[in-house]
Amino acid sequence: MRRVNVPLAGRSYSIYAGQGLLARLGEHCRRLRLGERCAVLTDRNVEPLYAGRALDALRAAGFDPLLVTVPAGEGAKHLKVVAQCYDQLAAHRLERRSFVVALGGGVVGDLAGFVAATFLRGIDFVQVPTTLLAQVDSSVGGKVGVNLRAGKNLVGAFHQPRVVLCDLDTLASLPDREYRAGLAEVIKYGIIRDARLFGLLERRMPGLLRREPALLSDVVVRCCRIKADVVGADETEGGVRAILNFGHTLGHALEAVSRYGRYLHGEAISIGQVLAARLSSENLGLPHREASRIVRLFEAAGLPVEVRLNRSQRRALVDAMRHDKKVSGGVVKFVLAPRLGEARYGIALATEQVERAIAEAGKVASWRR
Amino acid sequence: MRRVNVPLAGRSYSIYAGQGLLARLGEHCRRLRLGERCAVLTDRNVEPLYAGRALDALRAAGFDPLLVTVPAGEGAKHLKVVAQCYDQLAAHRLERRSFVVALGGGVVGDLAGFVAATFLRGIDFVQVPTTLLAQVDSSVGGKVGVNLRAGKNLVGAFHQPRVVLCDLDTLASLPDREYRAGLAEVIKYGIIRDARLFGLLERRMPGLLRREPALLSDVVVRCCRIKADVVGADETEGGVRAILNFGHTLGHALEAVSRYGRYLHGEAISIGQVLAARLSSENLGLPHREASRIVRLFEAAGLPVEVRLNRSQRRALVDAMRHDKKVSGGVVKFVLAPRLGEARYGIALATEQVERAIAEAGKVASWRR
Repeated sequence: MRRVNVPLAGRSYSIYAGQGLLARLGEHCRRLRLGERCAVLTDRNVEPLYAGRALDALRAAGFDPLLVTVPAGEGAKHLKVVAQCYDQLAAHRLERRSFVVALGGGVVGDLAGFVAATFLRGIDFVQVPTTLLAQVDSSVGGKVGVNLRAGKNLVGAFHQPRVVLCDLDTLASLPDREYRAGLAEVIKYGIIRDARLFGLLERRMPGLLRREPALLSDVVVRCCRIKADVVGADETEGGVRAILNFGHTLGHALEAVSRYGRYLHGEAISIGQVLAARLSSENLGLPHREASRIVRLFEAAGLPVEVRLNRSQRRALVDAMRHDKKVSGGVVKFVLAPRLGEARYGIALATEQVERAIAEAGKVASWRR
Repeated sequence: MRRVNVPLAGRSYSIYAGQGLLARLGEHCRRLRLGERCAVLTDRNVEPLYAGRALDALRAAGFDPLLVTVPAGEGAKHLKVVAQCYDQLAAHRLERRSFVVALGGGVVGDLAGFVAATFLRGIDFVQVPTTLLAQVDSSVGGKVGVNLRAGKNLVGAFHQPRVVLCDLDTLASLPDREYRAGLAEVIKYGIIRDARLFGLLERRMPGLLRREPALLSDVVVRCCRIKADVVGADETEGGVRAILNFGHTLGHALEAVSRYGRYLHGEAISIGQVLAARLSSENLGLPHREASRIVRLFEAAGLPVEVRLNRSQRRALVDAMRHDKKVSGGVVKFVLAPRLGEARYGIALATEQVERAIAEAGKVASWRR
């Protein structure tokens, strides 16, 4: 078991990564002196796999857990589901000292975190991410929230977990497509902050796709350390934290336009990062060779790197970007990389340039060579 | 115009109280460098009276305000209304630098504050309270939220306003019953923190009921100062802030049991404070004479001091108290006053004692003599 600290004045917490952590959930909660009554929030896919173990571990440590199961998929990040969760917590009489355990992927973490952030004006919560994407990204940093029809994550809060337990064993049950989607965030850390990690991923992608435990553990911990660093420097995204959104402006728009159905988040930001690499070359001089390495690494991970859209679809996409939370004064700002391992945020680009880049994104396979 | 500072590290703000402040709303927002796009959230009662002036003031200062009108009354503190507000803010493309103006009473402030606390993970908001209760209590301190069927304010956040503008002119349009309800919170400050204020209220109640401007201004500022002091010492109610809940445990339960229909909040906490005075005499030795003065002052303000309930209604009331956010480990804790001008919090009482006191609350008129 390895540990990463997230340094936040007064609300610091630890991320643990290792095998068999789910069985130690109760013990960790006990050490944090959390209240007796609690809720384990999970989805219909994860429930049959891990909910029993989580509840047992909590009961063995003297807690009184309620199980709350929501539908699987992005659709659960909806205000109606939030309202149903509140009602269940109220019926189980959760109190101010009570806590919520998020057991599942990014959707469960975002939803459970938002419920915890707002129930009784905020109660504690614990993240037990069971997908690669959630372990390296969404479970760390305190961004929680749900979607509106107008866009993704438009409602939410900053609410830090008390502890994050990344049980690597839970990744074994992850469908291949979801595992690969998680790799899109892993690759992102290499691009924005760690050229050596990027190189490791290039060399060891086959082993990583086989989910070799030692390699996986190393990669998860390195990603968490980068995220913890960035979040520790800028908790509420006043500045540098924005670099974590590399590829996300287009990615979110793509998810919104396709109504969160066609692409997994990781797939959408894979395409988004390839576009961001292209815009980085055009605007910040990212060497062509490095942009090509980026495209090839996403391809090696089995992720989509291009999208073919007609003109009205492109328009809808650009329109969706204007709805992004990161918009300020009507200008869409991007995170771009001047070189592998470094990112700059707040780069305003003309709508026309973005539209043109999207139009040519269909030809990325030719462009990257 | 007088000014009270609310001292909160990094998020300090000012409360202004005086006449003609609504016309200066835009100017205040400009000084705080808030973003151009904004929303004025108000209810159907307040809209025809003051929304035009608020919008004009904002437009004159260069802002682009959207008007959002919700139904009047406690029923608006509902998640469905929250969702409707989000959709309107998204359609008007509010951004991270945008802000929400809460124009109305406590319900509007709580609702608008919660919307602002959670839209785009939190945007700025400005309080323009137009009722006495909101001016002296709910607009200050950052407690925002909505109700669940299971209880009042069970969902919410701590989200401090950037400024509070108490325009005393707006109190002129307040129905008499609502004005008196606001006096219940005014009297509370005297009981828990300021025996001299209590004495002033005893002497000047007729003038206060006539809404004499100089007296009203003095009283509003004194109350805001007390609230600012308490909130500054304990923003998130870890300790002393709890004294502000004097009379509220029973008051909230009474509102919940009567489905927020029969009593205004101020009326419910008037009855709650009389009960708390009784429990204070029994448990902390509050002199009988002072308890009587408390009852008489609420009566002088034209507020209800007793409630007649049958046995099953009493049971429902005690049950509702157990649902209160302030419950910990299943024990109902009270705020009680050992003497006028001082309060203690976290006093655990046996359910039987509370039930008996409620049973005798119907006879309070005889008890107080």
